Amino acid sequence: MKLARYSKKEETHLGVVIDDQIVPLDGLADAYPTMLSIITGGDAALTKVRDHVATGAERIPLADVQLLAPVERPAKFLAIGMNYRKHAEEARKLGVAVPEKQFWFNKQTSCLAGPFDPIDRGVSEKVDYEVELGVVIGKPAKGVSEADAAAHIFGYTVMNDVSARDWQQHSPTFTIGKSFDTHGPVGPWIVTADEIADPHALGLRCIVNGEVRQDSDTSQLIHNIWQQISYLSTAFTLEPGDLIATGTPEGVGVARNPPVFLQSGDVVRCEVDGIGAIENRVL
Amino acid sequence: MKLARYSKKEETHLGVVIDDQIVPLDGLADAYPTMLSIITGGDAALTKVRDHVATGAERIPLADVQLLAPVERPAKFLAIGMNYRKHAEEARKLGVAVPEKQFWFNKQTSCLAGPFDPIDRGVSEKVDYEVELGVVIGKPAKGVSEADAAAHIFGYTVMNDVSARDWQQHSPTFTIGKSFDTHGPVGPWIVTADEIADPHALGLRCIVNGEVRQDSDTSQLIHNIWQQISYLSTAFTLEPGDLIATGTPEGVGVARNPPVFLQSGDVVRCEVDGIGAIENRVL
Repeated sequence: MKLARYSKKEETHLGVVIDDQIVPLDGLADAYPTMLSIITGGDAALTKVRDHVATGAERIPLADVQLLAPVERPAKFLAIGMNYRKHAEEARKLGVAVPEKQFWFNKQTSCLAGPFDPIDRGVSEKVDYEVELGVVIGKPAKGVSEADAAAHIFGYTVMNDVSARDWQQHSPTFTIGKSFDTHGPVGPWIVTADEIADPHALGLRCIVNGEVRQDSDTSQLIHNIWQQISYLSTAFTLEPGDLIATGTPEGVGVARNPPVFLQSGDVVRCEVDGIGAIENRVL
Repeated sequence: MKLARYSKKEETHLGVVIDDQIVPLDGLADAYPTMLSIITGGDAALTKVRDHVATGAERIPLADVQLLAPVERPAKFLAIGMNYRKHAEEARKLGVAVPEKQFWFNKQTSCLAGPFDPIDRGVSEKVDYEVELGVVIGKPAKGVSEADAAAHIFGYTVMNDVSARDWQQHSPTFTIGKSFDTHGPVGPWIVTADEIADPHALGLRCIVNGEVRQDSDTSQLIHNIWQQISYLSTAFTLEPGDLIATGTPEGVGVARNPPVFLQSGDVVRCEVDGIGAIENRVL
């Protein structure tokens, strides 16, 4: 299923996307008022949602709604750096040491944005794109083995890890440059894990103004998703709704020759096969 | 005022601490069910709280309750590294470059713990203490000048930025080693900003098993609190309830000769003058 959050007449709703329509889940709102409540509800919640859709509930055109970030503010929004082989190589050429261990940083949850919201460059002059496969945690994960990691995933989504390269350089932690307001567009929905046969075999692309800038697939991950969840959960608990950005492939603007950064009016499209696409215009 | 969250008979309450007693705010729970609702309520909320206390409401012994982290899960839990002059020097001797700009990292909000909760070392063999003055954001802050920063602070608290030094070294972002579950004890309450005449003139100490390990005062901050808020808010919005750990002074265990780390049974007390003390036993 494709689970979405959307706004219509300035009210927020949950829905299931089927082709170019959306089935509102307003009828389930007493039990499941938020996406997080569906995520924590687990299989029982998903069964209720499926049953609701199967009853032939009302459908409305997707074009009539505004899609929102598919999960409300999560507790964590974590991202891994230099996790595609060729991207690690292009980063190395820029003087960034290729890390021995998984290289995690935070995006502040305040940067979370909708799948078609504008990107505000703020005070940065070097705003860049990074298409990523996003993971949404389902069941709490602490001390989880790689073999068990998949059971803790609720679903998958598309992310653009928008990066202010000038501010990213302020410190080796990336904290200030990865979290400008609006720099975390996510969506357009969550595809539940049961519909992604192999998350390590998904093509993904970033397209700026119609030009393909990144084009790879998730088989190129250095640390795969099971390893990511296992590693993080060794230290702390991953909680329902937590978002994980699994890394970006080569082709980022800062590594091009000469470097190119996003300009006002640019349209950035990030797509992952089997999930969908988000598209954000730069203010 | 000293605003606290506490548990009694397994229920969570808010209260105002006066000497060794606490005034429950249950009577205001309809309007202000959470600390975050008081914080976002601003001056109007604080007036209601003061009036409630002034009516001679019930008081209960502080000893009869279990104090909790004084704010519910915030959106952000940010901490600045190497921000006391002598601590930056001891870090430099360990091979950590003294940063040119403010050096921010995240503690995951899942590590937030109560002021007297135990510290779980988890898989780390090098768990260390770091006493810090904590800031609780009040009014949203975006693009705030140093001169205006104080107006965005709700209050102050005490933090122990517990650090798994072995895991902290895994990457220059500090992400994995600063956020083990239980490694963010905060409290014992929030002192509202009106009661702290000068947050840059507060003594603070960390005491392990009765031995003073850190002893400094906030006049030694390299980047003061106004500069911290101004810098962060240039990039992103600081939101009501966000927690900021303003840096730790010299004397951390990893920088001692030879290094000493926390062991099972150790009792770590962190205190900031004018606020109070938190005390956590190591499991």
